This record gives sequence, structure tokens and C-alpha cells, in this order.
Amino acid sequence: MTAAAQSVHELIEKHRPVLDQALETIRSRAYWSPYPEHPKAYGENGSLSLPEGKAAFDALLGGRVELDQPGTDDWVGGEVSPYGPKLNVTYPHADPDVLLPAMRAGMGAWRDAGAEARAAVCLEILARINARTHEFAHAVMHTSGQAYMMAFQAGGPHAQDRGLEAVAYAYAEQVRTPDEAGWSKPQGKRDPLELHKAFVPVGRGVSLLIGCNTFPTWNGYPGLFASLATANPVLVKPHPRAVLPLALTVQICREVLAESGFDPNLVALAAEGAGEGIAKTLALRPEVRLIDYTGSTEFGDWLEANARQAQVYTEKAGVNTVVVDSTDNYKGMLANLAFSLSLYSGQMCTTPQNLLIPRAGIDTDAGPKSYDEVVTDLAAAVDGLLGDDARANALLGALVNPGVKQRLDAAPGLGEVALASREISNPEFPDAVVRTPVMVKLDGTKPDAEAAYFSECFGPVSFAVAVDSTEAALDLLRRTVREKGAMTVGAYTTSAEVTTSVQDVCLEECAQLSLNLTGGVYVNQTAAFSDFHGSGGNPAANAALCDGAFVSNRFRVVEIRREG
Amino acid sequence: MTAAAQSVHELIEKHRPVLDQALETIRSRAYWSPYPEHPKAYGENGSLSLPEGKAAFDALLGGRVELDQPGTDDWVGGEVSPYGPKLNVTYPHADPDVLLPAMRAGMGAWRDAGAEARAAVCLEILARINARTHEFAHAVMHTSGQAYMMAFQAGGPHAQDRGLEAVAYAYAEQVRTPDEAGWSKPQGKRDPLELHKAFVPVGRGVSLLIGCNTFPTWNGYPGLFASLATANPVLVKPHPRAVLPLALTVQICREVLAESGFDPNLVALAAEGAGEGIAKTLALRPEVRLIDYTGSTEFGDWLEANARQAQVYTEKAGVNTVVVDSTDNYKGMLANLAFSLSLYSGQMCTTPQNLLIPRAGIDTDAGPKSYDEVVTDLAAAVDGLLGDDARANALLGALVNPGVKQRLDAAPGLGEVALASREISNPEFPDAVVRTPVMVKLDGTKPDAEAAYFSECFGPVSFAVAVDSTEAALDLLRRTVREKGAMTVGAYTTSAEVTTSVQDVCLEECAQLSLNLTGGVYVNQTAAFSDFHGSGGNPAANAALCDGAFVSNRFRVVEIRREG
Repeated sequence: MTAAAQSVHELIEKHRPVLDQALETIRSRAYWSPYPEHPKAYGENGSLSLPEGKAAFDALLGGRVELDQPGTDDWVGGEVSPYGPKLNVTYPHADPDVLLPAMRAGMGAWRDAGAEARAAVCLEILARINARTHEFAHAVMHTSGQAYMMAFQAGGPHAQDRGLEAVAYAYAEQVRTPDEAGWSKPQGKRDPLELHKAFVPVGRGVSLLIGCNTFPTWNGYPGLFASLATANPVLVKPHPRAVLPLALTVQICREVLAESGFDPNLVALAAEGAGEGIAKTLALRPEVRLIDYTGSTEFGDWLEANARQAQVYTEKAGVNTVVVDSTDNYKGMLANLAFSLSLYSGQMCTTPQNLLIPRAGIDTDAGPKSYDEVVTDLAAAVDGLLGDDARANALLGALVNPGVKQRLDAAPGLGEVALASREISNPEFPDAVVRTPVMVKLDGTKPDAEAAYFSECFGPVSFAVAVDSTEAALDLLRRTVREKGAMTVGAYTTSAEVTTSVQDVCLEECAQLSLNLTGGVYVNQTAAFSDFHGSGGNPAANAALCDGAFVSNRFRVVEIRREG
Repeated sequence: MTAAAQSVHELIEKHRPVLDQALETIRSRAYWSPYPEHPKAYGENGSLSLPEGKAAFDALLGGRVELDQPGTDDWVGGEVSPYGPKLNVTYPHADPDVLLPAMRAGMGAWRDAGAEARAAVCLEILARINARTHEFAHAVMHTSGQAYMMAFQAGGPHAQDRGLEAVAYAYAEQVRTPDEAGWSKPQGKRDPLELHKAFVPVGRGVSLLIGCNTFPTWNGYPGLFASLATANPVLVKPHPRAVLPLALTVQICREVLAESGFDPNLVALAAEGAGEGIAKTLALRPEVRLIDYTGSTEFGDWLEANARQAQVYTEKAGVNTVVVDSTDNYKGMLANLAFSLSLYSGQMCTTPQNLLIPRAGIDTDAGPKSYDEVVTDLAAAVDGLLGDDARANALLGALVNPGVKQRLDAAPGLGEVALASREISNPEFPDAVVRTPVMVKLDGTKPDAEAAYFSECFGPVSFAVAVDSTEAALDLLRRTVREKGAMTVGAYTTSAEVTTSVQDVCLEECAQLSLNLTGGVYVNQTAAFSDFHGSGGNPAANAALCDGAFVSNRFRVVEIRREG
């Protein structure tokens, strides 16, 4: 056994229990994660504590992320933290004519290693990322603008969970067919026909990950690990404002691949210079056979229409709706919604945007509430939640880019402001742009209001849309999901009939529904192994995280059969 | 329990053992089929014997296939048997503006029935088709031109196997996620977060099956049953020359759906008038969200490029290659190849076309054989196989349409004829066009020869391509699969090194490989539950029959979660 084979064997032994638990959990959909989400869980057994992670991050600033990639022809990078500081980190810029062929060179050995070895290597990568969670948390914070705790959790263990989930699905999909099979067909009195068959999962080719600004790891890991685990090389093209978390990821991937005897070029980074726009060029390369993308509908649609040589998995814009019909926990509903609207300044693809509230008001456990009362009470709940600046900073984070701020500033012009946005100062980062959410009242029956609420206004902007009835809300919900897509739908109702109706709309229009959330689970949060992120069946995304469809077409099975 | 629910319950009880065995066999890839492939196995337990099947077929001639579909605005049909007679059968012509909405009406109840009930209904449909196998065999024979025995087996039990295989994959895919799950996340000293989650597989919308001329049932059933089992209505658009087998299929689907309490409009027929070309129109309808197609590369590419609202599964043209390097069973190789070239007059998407033979000859157990000897011996093997007219008729069937005859007639102009095509008379059907295969010698190094062998020449035409070496053969194989696609690759070699090389080419270019077949299994035949038909990874097809990728994106999973 070679040292590399020995190493792979050890990795399988080390990680098989976690893989098995992941496989079990994607079937049971119960709660589970191998990656602790408490900051104090880190600092022992080789993992970095918070101060160590901070120090590691600080050491990166002003330097180069060395990757030793073929075809490096320049060093690029211009990230500025949404909290103010320039990162001054540079990354290798690649000549795709050199890099892409080099990435394909290791495909054969990676294919021949088999699904279990690939899963074990992926799990080792995730384990090393996990050990550096506090370092990644700083990198995510200072590229996405997330507050530290969110960057730590969503950018750390929760992203790692989604990566592991993808590995589990990829592994399960590949081992549905055995490596070998005997086939013996009776022929009456004659000898049976006998064949020996071998089945080999083969990757499709280079997989291109086009990262996003807000959740570089959380939205990036599923595609990266699904493709790598199914025998494809992965080229990581980060958002120019959020390179660092993915560059560190690539560095760890390359390190683990090399150590376990594989070609490190199976994972590479494609950083770009200012305004270079290399995603379009890379997406059309013939070597690129898979693309994962999170971002605008415009570019997602362009990829789907033009990158025809590739399987394209997109998460695009959507308009998330909450139907407010009635509740038996008015206070809980307000608190839950207030948190959902505030978390990360509403800069989540899952944040509710349109709150559909009957003009005649709703029934609650606190008595009937008029439309105005609901809106006022919700505004007060948000104000209460964010009344303390320290808490507001911890929840809101910073606005990720000037586009969000522009939309926030323009929102008061769209209608009557029910909740005005406030500036919050951040003592630690005085240059951070921190704002509380704005909520605007709109009349759902007015055509000019539709221009506002019937498209995505990404950021801390929500619309309290007055509708004629719950039935009208459901009609609008259906039309919104069908035409604009939705990552999430929420509904509050005590009526069995309305429950059935809203479920029917979500089933028919293919949207994920959260009903009557009043506690510590929010419509904008999904848990790996249990919740699907998106449905893949409405215009907001053509894939869900994570299911069989997300992995099954990333490889094909080649059969070799012979007599005997 | 309603009568319909009772009926579904009974169907589940009746068919669950077969479903379970299918689920087990797609994992083991061993030999299995619930549908007998011996003609005499039929005639008892409600199934039709051969004479009964013939009588049932005869009774259809000159009549209408009544389907009682909404939107029927005409009766159309002009099938002429490749064996001579006009069928004079007419079918309902549909107004899609009426039919398509009617097909969607039953989707909710079909979805709510659940995966197991859908599988059971599909298996009942297949069981009823199976009982009428001899009737279907005549319908397939007189639309495809297959000889009776082949129409019986490939159009009967083997097609039913592929349908069942698709149902098994569809069922397995849907039950990967449970119907319900409890989720409890610990919160330290606080109460855990608890959610109840429901998961519902939902269909995508109307699935359009565009049938082919040569294998209306075998190539049609996988898509039909995969879509129906995953909660989609299916609109069946047969090839205008091969309507009857699919019209009967639709009739049985509607009958079983109605009897088990579902809307019969979940399956409907879209027959067309002469030259109407409705496939293009239907493929672009917004209701159509899935398309299965078998046919020309030109139209397959058009569908993939234009039917962007749908998931498109295509099987198109390819160029199948056999690499002849060496053999330890020369006689067996010749006999095996002769059969492969002759079966159904080479009118199979899996029939070898290019036989790559080293110019310097090959080593065999019968001593070295020159290129010319191999070609001459293979020609003699074909002649021997087809020397008896009765046997020739039983193997060849009839040419399916004038296009095939044109290509056959033109083939001698492409190079030196090594094996001339002969006319065979068919005493039972004097008007049938029955021809033995032609084999043409080509020099693989001559650019003008490439024009012939480097494109699909569908029908009983093969090329004995002289190549400089086995290495040159492998290069040409690679280029052919990469640029033209292939449903099958064959190779004969006694060399371990060549075996590895040809395997590498097939793994890298994603083609299904049969090695050293010398007995009763042929490169152009695949067995359901065990062999994949196509790989989905080269230009001949974007999907394989049948794997997870074939079913996983035909539905999406909608989650409904609530506290508690």
C-alpha cells in the first residue's frame, strides 16, 4: 500500500461514522450536526479558538493567498470589508488555457479512487475547515458584512453542514449501483447467459462554482462538494467582494488532496481583476460541464440559456411572502417576524419581503387587530428588538454593498413608511453602514403598488401589503411564486381551511412553507439534513439544497460488461 | 374507505411484491423480470395467447381507438405496416387548448395519493399491457417492421421491464425523503426547538412523450412511467408511423386510472394529421414541463435549445463502434457480430456501425487474420446466418421506412462492398421490404472515407474501417464518441493492455462498453434492471435508461413545517 493509499484508507476509517450518520439523517430528516455551533466549542483538539481565529485572519490581511496553481499570470484582489477596512489580500489570477487542462489531468485517478474515498477526502476537507471556523468567520464577516455570530454560525458549521449534506447525497447516489454484478439469465435447458458487469461513476468534467457576496461558504459548499464527491474537478470563481472565504477553502482542498495522493489541481481558484467579469468567459468553456450559481436572476437566466454545454444549477432572485390571516399567538408572531426582517439586515434570499395582511384586519388571541394595528405592532416589535445598539449591531451586521443601501434609501418613496430605517453606529467599526429595516405600507389592489412589491427588493425592505381578504392574499401568493419565484413562504392562520388553502398553493406552485412560526425558528433559516433550501420548482431556483436531483446528474455511470 | 381507495389499497397489496423485487434488482443488477418472454407463457390467467392476440389486433384494423378525451376535434391516422397492409386505424385528434388544462385537473389528487399508490397504479397498467403482449406484439410489428418474435419480446416484456424499472427508480427517489419528520434541536438549558415537517413530492406539470418509429413501447415506456409515477400527467405524442402501440397503452392507462378513482385525463394521446408536426407546438406549451424524446439529433437538439420551460430527456443519433484488436474465439466473435449487424436490419440505436480493424490484421485462436480475411469471414458469417429465407425474415424484419432503404441503396457508392445486400422475399407479406445488411470497406486514414463513417447511417449498413493500429482505432473511437456520441461500444481483445486502454476511452468519453461478446448476448441488447441503455454523458443521449438522474428532476419536494 502506498503512503497515499494508506492515507485514504485512514481517512475512510476516520470519517465513515460521520458519513453514516449523515446518510441516516438525510433519510430521517431529524436534527443533527457534527459541527458545533457554539463559539466556545472551538479551541481544543487542534481547532482555533476565537482569538486564535482572529489572529489567523489578521495574519492574512495585506498578504497573498498562495495556492501554487498552474497558469498563474497575475495577482489580484480588492476586497473591502463592509465594516470598513480594506483587506489588501491578493490571490492568484489564472490563465484558463493553462489551468483548465491541468484541472482535468487528475480526473482519472480521482474517478478510480471510488465514491467512498472521495467522500472521505471531502469530509477531511470539511473537518479542517471546521477546525478553522473562527478564522473563516472573520473572513465571512469582513466580506459579507454579517455580524460575527452569524458569520460564525452560517458561514461556519451551517455551511459545513450543507457541504456534508451534499457529500452524503453524492455518495448515496453513486452507490445505488454496485461496483460489480453477476448476471445470469436462464435459457431453459441450455446453459444460462452469464455476464460480469462493472459500473463506474464518472465525473462530467470541470465544475464551475460562481460564488455570491452574502453567503460565500453557505451557498458555495453544496455545489463544490457535490461536484468534487462525484468525481469532478471544481473551479471556484468567488464574487470579487467575497474571495477570501472561498480562497481559504480552495487552499484546504488542495492541501488535503495532495496529502491523500491526489492531484491538488482538482480544486482551483479563479480570482479576477476589477471589472474583469470572467464568469461569462469561464461558463462557456468547453471543459466546464457543471455550473453552480447563486446571484441575480439576470445572470442566472443567462447561464441557463447560454452555458448549454453544462448542467446549470442556479439560485436566483425571488419574492418571499408571508400570509397573515390569524394567529393564536400574536406576540410570538410579531417577535418572530421582527427577527426575520432584521436578521443580517434582510440580506438573505430567504428573508420575507411581502407581508400580506387583510385590509379588514385579523383575529388574534389578543383580540381582533386592524391592518394598521398589525403593521404598527410589527414596527414596534422591530424597534423593540433593535432598540439596543449592541444588540442591533449583533443582529443586523453591515450593509453588504452600496446597492443595498440605495434600495433602502429609495424605499420610503414607494409608499407610506410604517417603520423608518435608523442608522446604528458601530463603535468597533465606525465606517460600517448599519441600518435598521424599513417597512412600507402598500395597497395590494393598486397597480402602481404592484411595481414595488412584485419584484425583489433585496435588503432590509419589506412591504406591508393590504389585501381585500385572505383569499386575495392566497391569489397574490400564487401569482408571486409562479411569476417571481420564492425561496420561502410563511403563513399565520388558526383556520384549518386557510391552512389547507395555503398548503395547496405551495404544493401547486412548489414553494417551501413555514406555518405559524412564533418561537425560535425563523422562516429564513433552514437546517441541513432536514430542511430543503428552495424547491427547485419555481423561478427562484432550479435546484434545491440538497436532494437527489442536485447530485444525480453530476456524474454518469459507465458500464463495462463481459461474458462469464 | 371509498371504492376507489379500496381499489388502490388492493393494487398496492397486489403489486408490492413485484415493486419490491424491482427495487432489489436495480440495486443488485442481477437478472430478473416479472414478464415472461416466451410466447407460450401467455394465454392463461386472463392473458391473450398468440392467436387471441392476433385476433385482437385484427379487430382493431379499420376502426377507431376510442379514448373519450376532452378536446377531441377530429379523427386522424394513416399508418401503413412496413409489411404492406394499411392499418386504417384512426385516433382522436386533440385541441391542446382544451386537452392540456383538462390533463392538469387531476394532478392534485394524483399527487395526494402518494408514491406507493402511484407505483401500484403504474404496475397495474403494466400488468394489463403484459396480459395483452401478443396484441401489442402485432401492433409493434406492423408499425416498426420488427419481425414477430422481436416485436413480441422487445415490444412486449422487455419494454414492460423498462417501464417497471422506471417506476422502481421513481418510487425509490420519492421515498428517500419521509412523508413526515420530527425535528428537535437542543438549546442547552432551554427547551429544544421543535418542528414537525411534512414532505410532499409534487409533479412538475404535463410530461410530453414524443415517440419513435422503431421502438414505440421500448423507448416510450421509461419516460411515460417515470413521469406518471412522479405525479405528472403524461401526453403521449406517437410517431405518426407508430401510433397504435402507444394508443393502446394510453387506453389502458386511462382505464386503470379511472377504475382506481383517478382522473383518466392524467394520460392522453396527441395523434396528428399527415404533416401536421405537432411535436414542435406541444413542446413549447407552458403546461409542458417534461419532455422525453427519441429520434433525430436535429430535433433533439432543437428541443434542448428551445423547450426551455421543460426538463428535456433525449436519445438522439450516435455512431456505434466495435474495436477489433484480437480474439481467442474467432468463430464466436464473427457469429456474435453477424447477429448484431443483422438483428432488425440494423435499425437499432445500439447496432454497431463502424468496425475498426487494424490494416495489418489481428491475432486469433485460428491464427493471424488479415484485415481482408476478417472482413470476408464476417461477411460469410452474415451470409451464413441469413442463408435460410425463413430465418432471415425472422431476424431481419422489414425496413421501417423509405429513408432506411435509400441509405441502404446508397451505401455501395461509399466504398468497396464487402457484403452486398440481398432482397429476401417474405411469403406471408409479399410487399414487405426485407434486405440483408450491407458492409462497406473504408480506409480510416482517407479524409473522404470519414464523411461516410463519421456520421450515423441508420439501418443495415456497416463499415469495415481499416485503421493503422489498435492505437489508431482507440483514437478514432474516442473522437467518434466525443463528437458524434455512441449508445454502445464493443471491443474484442485478448490483451490486458488494450483492455485497459479501451476501458479508459469509454470511461473518459462516457460510453457503455461490451467486451469480447462471443455468445448469446449482443452489444445491441441491454437488459432492464441491470444494464444502462446509453450513458447520458456523450452526444447520443442526455439521459440513461434508467438511473436516478432520469427520475429525480421529474418532481420536486415541497416541505411544510410548523412548530411542535
